[in-house]
Amino acid sequence: VNPRLMLHPQKLLCIFGTGDLGRSLGLRLLQSGYRVVYGSRRPHSCGPLPQGAQVMSHAEAAQSASLIFICVHREHYEFLETLASHLEGKVLVDLSNNLKKGMYQEANAAYLQSLVPGAAVVKGLNTLSAWALQNGLLAGKQVYLCGNSAEAKQAVAKMATKLGLTVLDRGTLSAARELEDFPLQLFPEWRLPLRVAIGLIAFFFFYLLIRDVIYAYAEQKKDISFRIMVSLANKVFPIVSLVMLSLCYLPGVIAAILQLYRGTKYRRFPDWLDRWMLCRKQMGLIALGLAFLHAIYTFIIPIRYAVRHKLISLVMKNNKTTPFYFDNTEAWGTDSFYVLGILGLFLYVLLGLTSLPSVGGTLSWREFSFIQSKLGHLTLCICTAHGYIYGWNKFLRSSTYKWYTPPGYMLCLIVPSVVLVLKVLLVLPCVDRTLTRIRQGWERTQPREEMGTIKATNL
Amino acid sequence: VNPRLMLHPQKLLCIFGTGDLGRSLGLRLLQSGYRVVYGSRRPHSCGPLPQGAQVMSHAEAAQSASLIFICVHREHYEFLETLASHLEGKVLVDLSNNLKKGMYQEANAAYLQSLVPGAAVVKGLNTLSAWALQNGLLAGKQVYLCGNSAEAKQAVAKMATKLGLTVLDRGTLSAARELEDFPLQLFPEWRLPLRVAIGLIAFFFFYLLIRDVIYAYAEQKKDISFRIMVSLANKVFPIVSLVMLSLCYLPGVIAAILQLYRGTKYRRFPDWLDRWMLCRKQMGLIALGLAFLHAIYTFIIPIRYAVRHKLISLVMKNNKTTPFYFDNTEAWGTDSFYVLGILGLFLYVLLGLTSLPSVGGTLSWREFSFIQSKLGHLTLCICTAHGYIYGWNKFLRSSTYKWYTPPGYMLCLIVPSVVLVLKVLLVLPCVDRTLTRIRQGWERTQPREEMGTIKATNL
Amino acid sequence: VNPRLMLHPQKLLCIFGTGDLGRSLGLRLLQSGYRVVYGSRRPHSCGPLPQGAQVMSHAEAAQSASLIFICVHREHYEFLETLASHLEGKVLVDLSNNLKKGMYQEANAAYLQSLVPGAAVVKGLNTLSAWALQNGLLAGKQVYLCGNSAEAKQAVAKMATKLGLTVLDRGTLSAARELEDFPLQLFPEWRLPLRVAIGLIAFFFFYLLIRDVIYAYAEQKKDISFRIMVSLANKVFPIVSLVMLSLCYLPGVIAAILQLYRGTKYRRFPDWLDRWMLCRKQMGLIALGLAFLHAIYTFIIPIRYAVRHKLISLVMKNNKTTPFYFDNTEAWGTDSFYVLGILGLFLYVLLGLTSLPSVGGTLSWREFSFIQSKLGHLTLCICTAHGYIYGWNKFLRSSTYKWYTPPGYMLCLIVPSVVLVLKVLLVLPCVDRTLTRIRQGWERTQPREEMGTIKATNL
Repeated sequence: VNPRLMLHPQKLLCIFGTGDLGRSLGLRLLQSGYRVVYGSRRPHSCGPLPQGAQVMSHAEAAQSASLIFICVHREHYEFLETLASHLEGKVLVDLSNNLKKGMYQEANAAYLQSLVPGAAVVKGLNTLSAWALQNGLLAGKQVYLCGNSAEAKQAVAKMATKLGLTVLDRGTLSAARELEDFPLQLFPEWRLPLRVAIGLIAFFFFYLLIRDVIYAYAEQKKDISFRIMVSLANKVFPIVSLVMLSLCYLPGVIAAILQLYRGTKYRRFPDWLDRWMLCRKQMGLIALGLAFLHAIYTFIIPIRYAVRHKLISLVMKNNKTTPFYFDNTEAWGTDSFYVLGILGLFLYVLLGLTSLPSVGGTLSWREFSFIQSKLGHLTLCICTAHGYIYGWNKFLRSSTYKWYTPPGYMLCLIVPSVVLVLKVLLVLPCVDRTLTRIRQGWERTQPREEMGTIKATNL
Repeated sequence: VNPRLMLHPQKLLCIFGTGDLGRSLGLRLLQSGYRVVYGSRRPHSCGPLPQGAQVMSHAEAAQSASLIFICVHREHYEFLETLASHLEGKVLVDLSNNLKKGMYQEANAAYLQSLVPGAAVVKGLNTLSAWALQNGLLAGKQVYLCGNSAEAKQAVAKMATKLGLTVLDRGTLSAARELEDFPLQLFPEWRLPLRVAIGLIAFFFFYLLIRDVIYAYAEQKKDISFRIMVSLANKVFPIVSLVMLSLCYLPGVIAAILQLYRGTKYRRFPDWLDRWMLCRKQMGLIALGLAFLHAIYTFIIPIRYAVRHKLISLVMKNNKTTPFYFDNTEAWGTDSFYVLGILGLFLYVLLGLTSLPSVGGTLSWREFSFIQSKLGHLTLCICTAHGYIYGWNKFLRSSTYKWYTPPGYMLCLIVPSVVLVLKVLLVLPCVDRTLTRIRQGWERTQPREEMGTIKATNL
Repeated sequence: VNPRLMLHPQKLLCIFGTGDLGRSLGLRLLQSGYRVVYGSRRPHSCGPLPQGAQVMSHAEAAQSASLIFICVHREHYEFLETLASHLEGKVLVDLSNNLKKGMYQEANAAYLQSLVPGAAVVKGLNTLSAWALQNGLLAGKQVYLCGNSAEAKQAVAKMATKLGLTVLDRGTLSAARELEDFPLQLFPEWRLPLRVAIGLIAFFFFYLLIRDVIYAYAEQKKDISFRIMVSLANKVFPIVSLVMLSLCYLPGVIAAILQLYRGTKYRRFPDWLDRWMLCRKQMGLIALGLAFLHAIYTFIIPIRYAVRHKLISLVMKNNKTTPFYFDNTEAWGTDSFYVLGILGLFLYVLLGLTSLPSVGGTLSWREFSFIQSKLGHLTLCICTAHGYIYGWNKFLRSSTYKWYTPPGYMLCLIVPSVVLVLKVLLVLPCVDRTLTRIRQGWERTQPREEMGTIKATNL
């Protein structure tokens, strides 16, 4: 047995279709050491193909190789039925995608299998783009495979591994529909966090619009609508950012309380909690984005027309009256306020950087949890303090509560304060010890269970 | 047959040369489970080698292994000629690089082959640095191989794959020269965008220098040369940034128009368009860099001496005259201007983040195109609006056109406006439908082709 | 021989332990095409397991597979002793970690081996988290293996490679302790740089506190303690940032001088220099963090209460006196100062971006060294100039030297100036030529060596 051949039982691969995807795939296969033959309806006029590839009629090409990539639109699958005898026993890889979800009742791959029952259809690699194939951006990328023949899947998996891909087997061909829907998804894990963010922004925007602009117009007959653009936005963004950040840490606290209450970690969390925990990263990134906007809005404050106008008016008024005293407490207060904001932003950015795949990937598990948990709670703590200092001398003033409503920055402090208080309770030594034991597999013996059994705890 | 041996037909590898590269490569091979023997002229005094490696004379080492890495400078290849008999039938991997392009007429690998005609020379792995080898930063890295013997390349490719590398076969040894030039390249894909950026910066700098500083000196005898450092730069950077951003999206529009005009996607674009499209990412990143500079220049405006001086002078002047009215339109106008700038910067940064390899790699093709196309055009739109609002009340004022020239911000709005108008035309349902069909492989039947044939469209 | 079987000699893998790690590992193995059987004390009530996995008693499961993953806490290893006969000749992979360093004298894997002497224990994969396994974040990750049986390690390495991991062999089981300590490390390479940074920050903070706040209180009876929060911090951060940046480039200069002095590159650097060079990246990133803080502190200057108060007071004073002249030199000086700071920050950020793994990984060696060396020294040069211009007209004023001490910005210019001067000397053609030759392997012939020998230089 020639060892080289054994390592490449199918050195010659066949591609049906000479479009972008077919050509890019062929190029990539050739670069990885395979020989490639194209099957084409017009073998003599099918446009530029990668150097080194052969072109034949569909029937000839099919006969020469045992693995055939179908890079043709589903709309044109019919011609494969006429080739059914040539495709007997071959492995057909269906790479097709549709333009929209639910265009066809049957998955493309199932349709293909029904046309060519004698072949082993494998659905997969359809998440790869022609662009990624051409540019060799495949290393470590996950691709999914499904199919009814384990041997056929094995052959495709070997080829994919040689291309640098990581292969995930998704079972039989009945999963084809799911695989065909993958490339059509648009940020599925961002939907919930974005909806929450937009909802909060809308709520606080209208709340502050009424309290600030409409109140001033109704009660003082003053038109300060120009403040919507910057002043109002610069209140809404930090408020929502802080709430979103605390919503990142709330589910962890709820989960810990649930585990403490149940006395075991072996019962599943409710679905809503699971879903919430899975989108914490996205929530945090949206919070970071809003904090970033808040920072820039703050930096441009002094060049705004309204601010400069106010400053000049102030000077002109002051000028005519008594000397202008320096208030040391005011200086300390505002400076502390700014410093907490800066430190919060700094930590926010640090958290964001470690959530970059390439940075997070270099961290050990302990380092990652140190950053995301310890540093994350510190960020929340600092940002909450930033909010408290903002209102430090306004909490007890009745003029703060226009139309008997609390201002926005008070509302937004509720959730973070609750999260921080609960977190402090959970970190108390007596609570923490029980929680650590539960997370290591210990279970509180409950009356309804047989007493005295000790379970081997698992990692 | 022992299965372990079969998987590693060449467990013992030989390295000629005990320099940095030789040692790092040996370390890495040992870590990956190979045994390593070094060939050295002075086997007994060749400095520290990785633990577990053997050292022998060149001849002895060559005989013990079938694959030999040549980690020696080309200047010292002559000694290999004397070893030719020992190297008969061996695979020699030439990892050498030169200090400059074109130092030698013949590629190092070709020279090596001529010295040892009985060996199978493979050029490759020369893009790896000793540093990357030592630190295990190889996963997914592409390396190139070339050589005349397919079996020899196969053996090297297997070894490289075991090291976590992705191997690209570049053909015969005649490609060696090209491979040897790879590590000497310095940002080849950044050259064109950088030249365009520098050209635009130089043009707008001198244009604004004449219009602002020299005009003021010539017409009003005022020396405002100090404005070159900040004010002028803060005009040039956003102008060039906006033009560069629109130049990212112009080639896509041109390509679409070409496809519509030709009625097919199966004809190649002209070379200049291809080259332009390939450097869009770099153009966008330069635009982002300039936008970032523009933002920081803007943030420091209020702490500048000149600005504070002007503010104080204004107050002193105002003070002596009539009351100082608040202009609501002005407040709305400037605030909108700032807000559009902030949003533009935010989207710019988002686009930049998704162009990070590790972030872009996690996106599906549809998500990537959503960000780079939809969000990209939105960014262009917002930044263009930012520019229009800047000049909103100055377009019709004759004092704007000093020396009959339009100001810089008007000039820079031309390209983005054209791109946006063309894009809007392309998105019109009737045009978009035709374009989608063309991109799916449909071809407008042309009189010179045989009528009635329907081509199988390809993915 | 069935080729499929040969490629997967151990298609069925066994996992002891049904905790988080066991379940995630099983899921991942199933996805990679293996069959998985769990060994459990209570096979009928062990909670949810990944779809497709079997569950048996420990003994049955052990018999069915040749490779067994031990995903059980060390505290529960004893039960394995009773299974010793079933585990005879099996490969046991010990994935366990401890909660703290030095909890046990013996490594977990060594303890396991002593319990089951007939099995081949392999320590490894313990750096993987359940989370990474579940989410398929394994591509290219390095894992370590150690064990006394080369065949057993080989089998585990093959499995790990199939999971997309890069395997590093760390020798015999005596290395197990070291491997078990890996996941407990917390940023080991950041310790030294962080200590240096904290030391410098503390020193400069107290130095400036004495010179600024305490001096003002002692000599002028003025309470300016509010300046600690922003003004003082905004002096300490840039000072330490500049010193840290120059400390990144100092070891490279020292190394070059050492090589020149010794006339060879074949002698090891002293340990302190090696350690210093290994943490340059971390030093640079801390310097970038401090520069970022400095930038934000600067941006918020004009909205500070103290600054606005000063501005207003200035106007009121000026108002009553003579006209307020514009100082062109002052305008040029301060604007140059700001521009150098902005450019320095821009280059700093560029350096930081290229140190992201995913960005740095796409650069060739020459590009990486261009950025980190050329651009790095340029950054240092610009930031040093930024510092010099800050004090340009204060160096010769005696009022600068309060209590006969130099101000902070003068102190911080010493190290960068030394580094830059030395670098300029090293770049002089005559010195550079010698250095290049030394780095290519040339050695200065020394009297004590035999004269006339020429050594083959290595890459």
